[in-house]
Amino acid sequence: MTKTTHALIEQYRQCRENSEALVANLSAEDCQIQAMADVSPMKWHLAHTSWFFETFLLAPKKIISAPLHPDFKVLFNSYYQGIGEQFSRPQRGVLSRPSLRQVMDYRHWVDNHVVAALEHDSDECAEWVNLGIAHEQQHQELMRMDMLYNFSVNPLFPTLDEHLVCPSNEQPRQWLDFANADAQIGAQTGFSFDNERPRHRVYINEFSIASHLVTNADYLSFIDADGYQRSEFWHSDGFSWLQRQQIKAPLYWRYQNNNWYEFTPQGLIPLAMNAPVRHLSFYEASAFAQFKGARLPSEFEWEWAMEQAQAGHCDIAQIDDCAWQWTLSSYQPYPGFRPFAGDAGEYNGKFMVNQQVLRGGSYFTPKQHTRLTYRNFFYPHQRWMCSGIRLAKDRIYE
Amino acid sequence: MTKTTHALIEQYRQCRENSEALVANLSAEDCQIQAMADVSPMKWHLAHTSWFFETFLLAPKKIISAPLHPDFKVLFNSYYQGIGEQFSRPQRGVLSRPSLRQVMDYRHWVDNHVVAALEHDSDECAEWVNLGIAHEQQHQELMRMDMLYNFSVNPLFPTLDEHLVCPSNEQPRQWLDFANADAQIGAQTGFSFDNERPRHRVYINEFSIASHLVTNADYLSFIDADGYQRSEFWHSDGFSWLQRQQIKAPLYWRYQNNNWYEFTPQGLIPLAMNAPVRHLSFYEASAFAQFKGARLPSEFEWEWAMEQAQAGHCDIAQIDDCAWQWTLSSYQPYPGFRPFAGDAGEYNGKFMVNQQVLRGGSYFTPKQHTRLTYRNFFYPHQRWMCSGIRLAKDRIYE
Amino acid sequence: MTKTTHALIEQYRQCRENSEALVANLSAEDCQIQAMADVSPMKWHLAHTSWFFETFLLAPKKIISAPLHPDFKVLFNSYYQGIGEQFSRPQRGVLSRPSLRQVMDYRHWVDNHVVAALEHDSDECAEWVNLGIAHEQQHQELMRMDMLYNFSVNPLFPTLDEHLVCPSNEQPRQWLDFANADAQIGAQTGFSFDNERPRHRVYINEFSIASHLVTNADYLSFIDADGYQRSEFWHSDGFSWLQRQQIKAPLYWRYQNNNWYEFTPQGLIPLAMNAPVRHLSFYEASAFAQFKGARLPSEFEWEWAMEQAQAGHCDIAQIDDCAWQWTLSSYQPYPGFRPFAGDAGEYNGKFMVNQQVLRGGSYFTPKQHTRLTYRNFFYPHQRWMCSGIRLAKDRIYE
Amino acid sequence: MTKTTHALIEQYRQCRENSEALVANLSAEDCQIQAMADVSPMKWHLAHTSWFFETFLLAPKKIISAPLHPDFKVLFNSYYQGIGEQFSRPQRGVLSRPSLRQVMDYRHWVDNHVVAALEHDSDECAEWVNLGIAHEQQHQELMRMDMLYNFSVNPLFPTLDEHLVCPSNEQPRQWLDFANADAQIGAQTGFSFDNERPRHRVYINEFSIASHLVTNADYLSFIDADGYQRSEFWHSDGFSWLQRQQIKAPLYWRYQNNNWYEFTPQGLIPLAMNAPVRHLSFYEASAFAQFKGARLPSEFEWEWAMEQAQAGHCDIAQIDDCAWQWTLSSYQPYPGFRPFAGDAGEYNGKFMVNQQVLRGGSYFTPKQHTRLTYRNFFYPHQRWMCSGIRLAKDRIYE
Repeated sequence: MTKTTHALIEQYRQCRENSEALVANLSAEDCQIQAMADVSPMKWHLAHTSWFFETFLLAPKKIISAPLHPDFKVLFNSYYQGIGEQFSRPQRGVLSRPSLRQVMDYRHWVDNHVVAALEHDSDECAEWVNLGIAHEQQHQELMRMDMLYNFSVNPLFPTLDEHLVCPSNEQPRQWLDFANADAQIGAQTGFSFDNERPRHRVYINEFSIASHLVTNADYLSFIDADGYQRSEFWHSDGFSWLQRQQIKAPLYWRYQNNNWYEFTPQGLIPLAMNAPVRHLSFYEASAFAQFKGARLPSEFEWEWAMEQAQAGHCDIAQIDDCAWQWTLSSYQPYPGFRPFAGDAGEYNGKFMVNQQVLRGGSYFTPKQHTRLTYRNFFYPHQRWMCSGIRLAKDRIYE
Repeated sequence: MTKTTHALIEQYRQCRENSEALVANLSAEDCQIQAMADVSPMKWHLAHTSWFFETFLLAPKKIISAPLHPDFKVLFNSYYQGIGEQFSRPQRGVLSRPSLRQVMDYRHWVDNHVVAALEHDSDECAEWVNLGIAHEQQHQELMRMDMLYNFSVNPLFPTLDEHLVCPSNEQPRQWLDFANADAQIGAQTGFSFDNERPRHRVYINEFSIASHLVTNADYLSFIDADGYQRSEFWHSDGFSWLQRQQIKAPLYWRYQNNNWYEFTPQGLIPLAMNAPVRHLSFYEASAFAQFKGARLPSEFEWEWAMEQAQAGHCDIAQIDDCAWQWTLSSYQPYPGFRPFAGDAGEYNGKFMVNQQVLRGGSYFTPKQHTRLTYRNFFYPHQRWMCSGIRLAKDRIYE
Repeated sequence: MTKTTHALIEQYRQCRENSEALVANLSAEDCQIQAMADVSPMKWHLAHTSWFFETFLLAPKKIISAPLHPDFKVLFNSYYQGIGEQFSRPQRGVLSRPSLRQVMDYRHWVDNHVVAALEHDSDECAEWVNLGIAHEQQHQELMRMDMLYNFSVNPLFPTLDEHLVCPSNEQPRQWLDFANADAQIGAQTGFSFDNERPRHRVYINEFSIASHLVTNADYLSFIDADGYQRSEFWHSDGFSWLQRQQIKAPLYWRYQNNNWYEFTPQGLIPLAMNAPVRHLSFYEASAFAQFKGARLPSEFEWEWAMEQAQAGHCDIAQIDDCAWQWTLSSYQPYPGFRPFAGDAGEYNGKFMVNQQVLRGGSYFTPKQHTRLTYRNFFYPHQRWMCSGIRLAKDRIYE
Repeated sequence: MTKTTHALIEQYRQCRENSEALVANLSAEDCQIQAMADVSPMKWHLAHTSWFFETFLLAPKKIISAPLHPDFKVLFNSYYQGIGEQFSRPQRGVLSRPSLRQVMDYRHWVDNHVVAALEHDSDECAEWVNLGIAHEQQHQELMRMDMLYNFSVNPLFPTLDEHLVCPSNEQPRQWLDFANADAQIGAQTGFSFDNERPRHRVYINEFSIASHLVTNADYLSFIDADGYQRSEFWHSDGFSWLQRQQIKAPLYWRYQNNNWYEFTPQGLIPLAMNAPVRHLSFYEASAFAQFKGARLPSEFEWEWAMEQAQAGHCDIAQIDDCAWQWTLSSYQPYPGFRPFAGDAGEYNGKFMVNQQVLRGGSYFTPKQHTRLTYRNFFYPHQRWMCSGIRLAKDRIYE
């Protein structure tokens, strides 16, 4: 066994353990619940990430001769039409069987086969194991997002993880200016998703971007200025949305006894004024930017600026450890986009409409999982992911 | 302690144990789920039935000085506006906390107080303990209905209770004729709900009623005659309902490999042809009756006929041990209706619109819980309760 | 031609002219609109009432050899599945073609044939002409109801008919007491709808009923006592309905500049305090009755009381010339009910679920159209018909 | 009066006459109807385009001292929150008052004031008159779109305009190749909307674009290949949409008696095989492109290619006289975007989310109204505008 193989096995094992560590303090009942259609039960995540290895690696490579349980093919298929039928997404929380215990057994059955396969022929498997690890890391972030939401509707406000705290801003926010540029955008070497490729040329007009994220204190000033009542800051769709849903603050803010609180992994705590504002929609992010006479960055501006920062040309903070940053770019294929081969081609491509790109990473994101070329995406109204705001400004005029 | 008190304590203990026996073979995950808004998790039922004793007996009589947990007042209030706010009904399945274990502790805390109170002053408490027992028996039937539904959406078709089987018809169905009658309708002695009172006079025109319930075989002939496509049998609202919901058979029938199966407490089994048809809506019951040139009985005809049978004047089967029987009577107050005193007045009265009365009882109903005067009620489209059909016919003509 | 035939032709002509008189002051644009799915455009009513004579008289009796326009069979079929397909109800207001002019031509084509048929063989046709006249009278009331609603959403508040004014109460409301009675209920002689038959025996327990309808002033006291916020007066479904729809007053009440106004056929006018309250739902009528410690009458109590009044045994006002009176009876078939023959059997029977009976008549009802046995019916939430409240009370006690 | 002023007055008059010509063959009833929330009645368009001149020119410049009718401010405000309240959009078709005649009088009152103002001080008014003309031209296209939709739900299939026919493809479709380019995108001189500015630099990677639009025959081959059942061609949102809405063909296609027909301004006619496919959603356009192994062009590729064609460097047909062409670009502000001044700033900017850009023009578009820089936009599911497909392809590879 080569050193690389050994490292990959180790990486695989670590990743799998990390998922299980996320439920270490949760009961089987906790792992069962699904508080809205967008989230999935912890148990389902644990099973689906195993299903992914079974479906895209073990089965096609004939590493297994039969599935552990034939029903799992449907039960834990998320959205792959090419694989076949899927169990109804909003009803995932109703599957009390298989039990959490049975799902853990399924995980370990998959683990044994994956490790054996890597030991036997690493070359054959490495690409899919890498994709499976990246996939499971995405679900680790989803597990935090989903469980926080699940707990948020419980008036007992359970603690998810008392050690999981979003870093606060340590410096005041400043504008950083960028000149016109012929940029190269997208991933070139190392692991990346299909949607980050190919690396290609993009012309970027001069712009400014903020050194730090918008804080809770900043955002509170928007609320206090009646920001949610003043249509001039809002997209038409956004204003309709907030009126229909009676939105008055970010998702987890609660106003009680004349004070603002926030539901966080630590439970319900007083609003941390210097922490980045989190869990808001694209509509809210845009409206706040309008209120400040600014705008959101495009995903190209964002990537270009962060590359400059990484190269030491400027000082930008909170890139990927606080909150995903909404961009004004809609989620589209790059010129020359090629989906993953086979049924995995549904991974990203079929979602390239109606969604906005977010860049960076959050304090929910596994450390090994972030890249400057990474393209996260959500619908403009969604808020349960850890989303935040980095402002930008035009420097080009007519 | 009097003999009566002793008996009441015994009855209370038995009732409470019966509820817990219903979840003996279920996991904490099973007790967590809620597959639609109409059903509640097993855990919630176990808690709510305890809340009922706490709220209507222990607290007002000052048997306890403080609640075990202040949040439970809201979490386990079903629909009593007079008591205060209620946790959102469709989200009951999301409450992973309190845990099943904590709910069991809550039950036993309540039990200790109720028994102590009865031992101390039975006269003071008996009325409310009797109501609480009747209430908990209703929930025991709901627990079977709800859990059957919860399991029905799981493709693994779990077994709820292999010993719970609906009795089949032992004789062919016959018409029994009744002459015009001045009947007394409603409850007089013994325990009854407020909606069964007062006993009052009703004139009943001559009619005929069936000796047995409609069987699955009977109902299959309706399906085979395109009954679900032929509007002439249906109420206008019923036909819209079946088109909108794409209803083609009773709730738990499944057509697979050219055969009909039914999901029952035993799991998915071949349709039992001689068993009473169950789990259908008022619309379906009415349409089947039209198809047979018959109609449903009024609740007064039903009660009158069953009293005659009980008095030995005629032979009627399957009165309360197979399926609740839809009547064409809408759920209304009897002349002189008086709700229970205080906040318990919301128990029945506020539901007296838009619902139809069902009479009898089902194989899900606790044995001690049925009465000929009992008025069950559901919306015309609902099907998850164990509902069936007893036919009736007019004998009066213009 | 016999005298009876002559009279029937005259009655037919008068009825048809009355419908056209209702649109005499309306433009073709006015006759086109449909402000919600429950109402129909004036043009559609004018066409459908003609279609009724064509479909149930002219065509089956072969008085015509072909339809004037084959598309009309579908376009103007209201809900007769036996006749065939129906044009989508909520889209009736989109049919700008045929024009009002073409619909008037259709009416006159039908008139010529009906009159010729009566002249030729009155015996053959009289029954269906009588039904068609009763049907058209129902639509005359609908035309007033629908056009009032259509105009109510227009901020210009157009005047529908300045001479159409609801009579006010001339005397204070009093309770009239009735003893236990063996009543005969339902129609016996003269024209009646199938749902009023057969006349049959009903036992009525002693009760009291109000001499007059509830006034706007009475109802205002309910609003001023926070009646719409206090759940204790409401059915559970009713309280959900008012919260969901944000209902705070009867349909046509408007609060402006610290005063209550009402939209009436005369336009928006100050609320007439002594006029009967009108245009409210069953839920509101029931809640008001609860607020007053009373209830609504059953339809049998109502009919029995009005027969006594008509026979001079007591003094009851506002029977059929102000507002239809909600009863607590749901709309069900009388024992021995037989629908009209043929496709006209859909006229009433298929609506006998989910609706409540209203009795009496309103100031929108054609004078010749009311009967003490008449059973009007609407869903509990509907309000655009001219509905009001007559209170009743129990005199029976446990 | 200068020659320029004279020309502008002439242009204004011509534009206003063109709008009225669109209803010359329609009745007042036709001008009243609104078959879905997305469309508006003809009468409303005629009024709103006048309201636009009154609101943005006559009132702020104090050319009038008072409105003709104060209610019109609300009734004919489309979506300008800065101006104030708007009458409910889905209920525009219910406003039978003001009448078509009164709306025409309103138009002429506005016309008199605009012309007088231009004669008096053209410099002051020209900018707003030009915007008002461009605005009214947009509504002229909307009037055709909306009325075609209104007529499409009428089973009589009325003819809208027998002379309005979409040109067919005269040549077969070919691929035209474009190299990498530094393009200038956006409007520079002459009238343009704010969303077309500022002209700015965009780098375009090499690509190919089709010389002609996709025809009905092309699209039929997609349907015949089960295109609407095969998820692999569709965006996830698109496939959900077609299943939910049961979409099986473009909006106006009808399958009758084994043949395809299309509802067009001429009525229901056999499908014209060589005509461009029209009235389809972005989802359908994308799926068809996938089916052909191609994609949609970006709006920058489209503009760049058409500029080359206009400069004579290549031969591209059907640019703006057949159907608007879906692009894969979502509707976003250009870098440096500045909305119109004042309340007119709501004209475009607040819609820059959730929508896709279409380029070109259609056979419904007024001739003077098209520009290569013009950005039309609709939601991905919308189909009632005259939308079509121009294919593109990547030439860049990893």
